Amino acid sequence: MKKITFYYEFASTYSYPAAMRVERVASASGVSVIWRPFLLGPIFAASGMTTSPFNLNPAKGRYMWRDLQRQCDAEGLKLVRPDPFPANTLLAARLATAIADNAARAAFSRAVYTAEFAEGKNIADAATLAPLLAAAGQDPAATMAAAASDPIKAALRASVAEAQSLGIFGAPTLTSPDGEMFWGNDRIEQAVAWAAKS
Amino acid sequence: MKKITFYYEFASTYSYPAAMRVERVASASGVSVIWRPFLLGPIFAASGMTTSPFNLNPAKGRYMWRDLQRQCDAEGLKLVRPDPFPANTLLAARLATAIADNAARAAFSRAVYTAEFAEGKNIADAATLAPLLAAAGQDPAATMAAAASDPIKAALRASVAEAQSLGIFGAPTLTSPDGEMFWGNDRIEQAVAWAAKS
Repeated sequence: MKKITFYYEFASTYSYPAAMRVERVASASGVSVIWRPFLLGPIFAASGMTTSPFNLNPAKGRYMWRDLQRQCDAEGLKLVRPDPFPANTLLAARLATAIADNAARAAFSRAVYTAEFAEGKNIADAATLAPLLAAAGQDPAATMAAAASDPIKAALRASVAEAQSLGIFGAPTLTSPDGEMFWGNDRIEQAVAWAAKS
Repeated sequence: MKKITFYYEFASTYSYPAAMRVERVASASGVSVIWRPFLLGPIFAASGMTTSPFNLNPAKGRYMWRDLQRQCDAEGLKLVRPDPFPANTLLAARLATAIADNAARAAFSRAVYTAEFAEGKNIADAATLAPLLAAAGQDPAATMAAAASDPIKAALRASVAEAQSLGIFGAPTLTSPDGEMFWGNDRIEQAVAWAAKS
């Protein structure tokens, strides 16, 4: 089956509608989605940025929230602004990394985005995330333990390093097996079309 | 007639395909386009940026050129990288500002983008721009003289100040009469749809 790899960061605003629709767009073209959580913080830091570009540039931030609202309206998705923004996503990203099954990782990840951006919950809190693990068919205690283990910490660091080596600078980013890269919720259709024909 | 205002900067890469297709998209929905040249340099400088964000972040820059190539391929537009990038666009922006007729300003502006991004010409050079003025039905000498006059210099400064006061931080940006703002070549369809229904 044709594949596309979906790199996402739980704090990334446009990753929210992207995560909620990427499977729909991909499956319509017979493309499967590989869910790859990573962290943008270390990549931003390597460029000298200490927070989200949307905080660093207030005009861009104001626009992003309005544009995101329009995208969410078009998708029928509720949108609340996480506080603080960006959220601390280290635990959520480690948990998603610890889930070996791609479909379960996708289900958990969509639930995290919904908690964060539709319900305004604090996704840095294990108490928020544990029920989402259970709903995705995972054992919360075992997955929390795995997320705190050295191999999973190392696996997430490796994902960040891989993303950086691919030239990924933002999220969501989609990559095709032949090395093409697409950045943004608004490039999902193009990424899927590329993967479908290649 | 429904209207949309199209803010563009001649050095802006995504403004090139946007300028070449905005009239086609708008006219299909019965929307007219008001062409508003401005300068991003002073707006970037106010945010502490000394050059294009695509130069400041090399990974983002590499992605942009590849993504732009895909957009241009889809539109059947040739693409060469201007050298230097970004081009000095002060003269071209003053000339576009000096052209009072909106349709002639649009024709001249499209010709400038073609010279810069399809033909690799130096658009900082009056010798490049004079024939484009003539082709757009303008008197080159008179328009050059107007572009060097205080009222046109002040009008362009006012356009930059207006863009900044609207919260514009990049190009192309489209605004609707009811104050909605859309950033990017990939938002033209949404901007036109908004203007058509409002």
